[in-house]
Amino acid sequence: MNDTRAAVRAAKQASLELATASAEDKDSALEAMALALDAGRAKVLKANAEDVSAAEADGLEGPMLKRLTVNDAKIDGMIAGIRDVASFADPVGHTMAAKELDDGLTLYQVSCPIGMIGVIFESRPDVVPQIMSLCLKSGNGVAFKGGREAVRTNRALFEILRDAASAHIPADAFVMLETRGDVDDILDMDDSIDLLIPRGSNAFVRHIQDSTRIPVLGHAAGICHVYVDSAADTDKALKVALDSKVQYPAVCNAAETLLVHRDIADAFLPRIAEKYSAEGVEMRCDSVALALMKGSVPASEEDWDTEYNDLVISVHVVDSAEDAIAFINTHGSHHTDAIVTEDKATAARFVSAVDSADVFVNASTRFADGYRYGKGAEVGISTNKIHSRGPVGMEGLMIYKYVLVGNGDIVADYASGAKHFTHRDVNRELEL
Amino acid sequence: MNDTRAAVRAAKQASLELATASAEDKDSALEAMALALDAGRAKVLKANAEDVSAAEADGLEGPMLKRLTVNDAKIDGMIAGIRDVASFADPVGHTMAAKELDDGLTLYQVSCPIGMIGVIFESRPDVVPQIMSLCLKSGNGVAFKGGREAVRTNRALFEILRDAASAHIPADAFVMLETRGDVDDILDMDDSIDLLIPRGSNAFVRHIQDSTRIPVLGHAAGICHVYVDSAADTDKALKVALDSKVQYPAVCNAAETLLVHRDIADAFLPRIAEKYSAEGVEMRCDSVALALMKGSVPASEEDWDTEYNDLVISVHVVDSAEDAIAFINTHGSHHTDAIVTEDKATAARFVSAVDSADVFVNASTRFADGYRYGKGAEVGISTNKIHSRGPVGMEGLMIYKYVLVGNGDIVADYASGAKHFTHRDVNRELEL
Repeated sequence: MNDTRAAVRAAKQASLELATASAEDKDSALEAMALALDAGRAKVLKANAEDVSAAEADGLEGPMLKRLTVNDAKIDGMIAGIRDVASFADPVGHTMAAKELDDGLTLYQVSCPIGMIGVIFESRPDVVPQIMSLCLKSGNGVAFKGGREAVRTNRALFEILRDAASAHIPADAFVMLETRGDVDDILDMDDSIDLLIPRGSNAFVRHIQDSTRIPVLGHAAGICHVYVDSAADTDKALKVALDSKVQYPAVCNAAETLLVHRDIADAFLPRIAEKYSAEGVEMRCDSVALALMKGSVPASEEDWDTEYNDLVISVHVVDSAEDAIAFINTHGSHHTDAIVTEDKATAARFVSAVDSADVFVNASTRFADGYRYGKGAEVGISTNKIHSRGPVGMEGLMIYKYVLVGNGDIVADYASGAKHFTHRDVNRELEL
Repeated sequence: MNDTRAAVRAAKQASLELATASAEDKDSALEAMALALDAGRAKVLKANAEDVSAAEADGLEGPMLKRLTVNDAKIDGMIAGIRDVASFADPVGHTMAAKELDDGLTLYQVSCPIGMIGVIFESRPDVVPQIMSLCLKSGNGVAFKGGREAVRTNRALFEILRDAASAHIPADAFVMLETRGDVDDILDMDDSIDLLIPRGSNAFVRHIQDSTRIPVLGHAAGICHVYVDSAADTDKALKVALDSKVQYPAVCNAAETLLVHRDIADAFLPRIAEKYSAEGVEMRCDSVALALMKGSVPASEEDWDTEYNDLVISVHVVDSAEDAIAFINTHGSHHTDAIVTEDKATAARFVSAVDSADVFVNASTRFADGYRYGKGAEVGISTNKIHSRGPVGMEGLMIYKYVLVGNGDIVADYASGAKHFTHRDVNRELEL
């Protein structure tokens, strides 16, 4: 067994203890982490300056370099984030449901942590305090594996946070992996890691999904649509279509394709074309839209399946809402799709039939985000069809166990017919 | 694209329509299925007789042959099961939570089907009506792949049920795969199949888990423990330890290992040894238990990690409840484990620290079952750490989508500070 495996196994063991830590101890650990990070700014900034220098020498620039760079304002944000998580209610040990199986035999469904989370991330060091505080509060251990370019910053942050937490909770449940082979090592540790959260580019997430049997929480693509229905309010449609594309085009919940009903194309497309042109958006159009959008270019088949993450949009004219729904379910990535319409029946059909994590009526796709959904901190956005879907907060780190409390009860009595189940839902908290 | 892939893709398309079917249409389909199965008994029994003859000629016998055999009583059970599912409330389209993000901008979390379920099963043909009715009611499509020995019975059942349903819902969402290569084909269809449910032996389930990236709902092993604490009521301990082992030893929730606190070993072990001996249970013991249990034999290290599914139990004496917890978390399969104790603090610690789907206090492990939990029909028992854990009913076939309803709302207004989120939980059903 190599060092990585041994470290993850040891963390898994410690995570079993962390799972039973009290709310008070967890909150004390989080406050200690916030204080230690404030006191340890110099250490973090020094380590980060070294990472940034090395990255610049390697030719890193633009958004990647910006994401890597830590300053006092970013540390302030990390500290505020940790205290924000401390302010959440403890999610562990809640009775979610209770059922009396028979007199004196009660079944409780009780929330508990998932166990051990593997977090694989690219350059952003702020993932360390964010995910570590969320996992600590929810009683989960973490194996972190960060990008090579941020290794000194990640280590400095991790050591400060883990050392501060260790006075209050079993901090060995948190481990930072650093050697090169580590990612491959943890991808097959399904005996120790219960859930993987990759944070990085689409290609990076897809690679992780393709390389492991461990459940992966995340999304590899964000091909989002805005559909402007024949019954749309044109002013609302202009606002939503513009915001969905240009408010921040580099992210997964920005729109990539605009679908427009044939009956409203004449009235809508020339006006949105003007707005897109003013914002420098390249418009790739089917033949109908091409004739109506000044400055547009023809789309190729490929465009309908492309996530630009840039000031580019593809535009397709459809004959009906049903065609729009079919197009979205075929070409979309099941992330976020919006309809603009004043027709309630069409909106209801769209909401019911579009197979996506987030389906919006008369609102910008850019709202699909944990912060905007009021979740506080975000674990990620999931396009999975099981467990958690859409923006995921701390609830995505929880599962449950069934606790049955009896009095020496045996199944033989029910198999023989001597006793009978009552199966009565009851409003009762687990108390032993 | 071969026939299997084409058939599954077509079913996936149809499942998108099934997802939006009304409760009335789904219940009509289920009643039509129940009536058609009653009317089609002769066809099913004839097909089954052929399967049974062929299986006998192949040397199949015992429990396998019993599971394969269909008679009128089994068909009665299938019909009752379909009608039972029809009586459930429609699980689709429920507003699970609602939050006002701002005035006139409301986020709803709404239940919906997962999509397309792959069901791979060994000889039991009753899986077909059971899973098909559960999936239909919950709006999910199904690709069935049954064992070769039951191919005629499965086909007869499937055709009767699908044809009956097709008058009411898009029954193309259900497909029965029959050719030999089919299992391998569907294991890599993660673009069309959202969840796999294997029903069969442990080795069979483990093989499926090892061979696919599609999420698998199930359990490969059932190594369950009964721990008799120093503060146990000996009479309750005798009942629970006996029932957990002998009431039906061939199944996953039967106990395989008995852990006993050193302080109660003298009082308890000779008495349970008498009871086990009377039931023909072989006792494999550590050195302490060996001296106290008449007729026992020494255990090897291997015994602590073995699922017997038979009248055999391993017995280990521990120094403390903590030792029992550590032993269970190390050697168990995270399925079902029970403590017998009158000490409430020890019971609470056991419930919190044992990392299993079902953790019982003073009750037999044999209660871990969807029927006994009052779920009606059971999809399976899961030892997964995400989505569904323990006995899984129709709720395990559901996920949710986020529906945001606005009035032309855009993120730019919130990014600029012109508007602010209210993030207020509201008690409101989605209505468009």
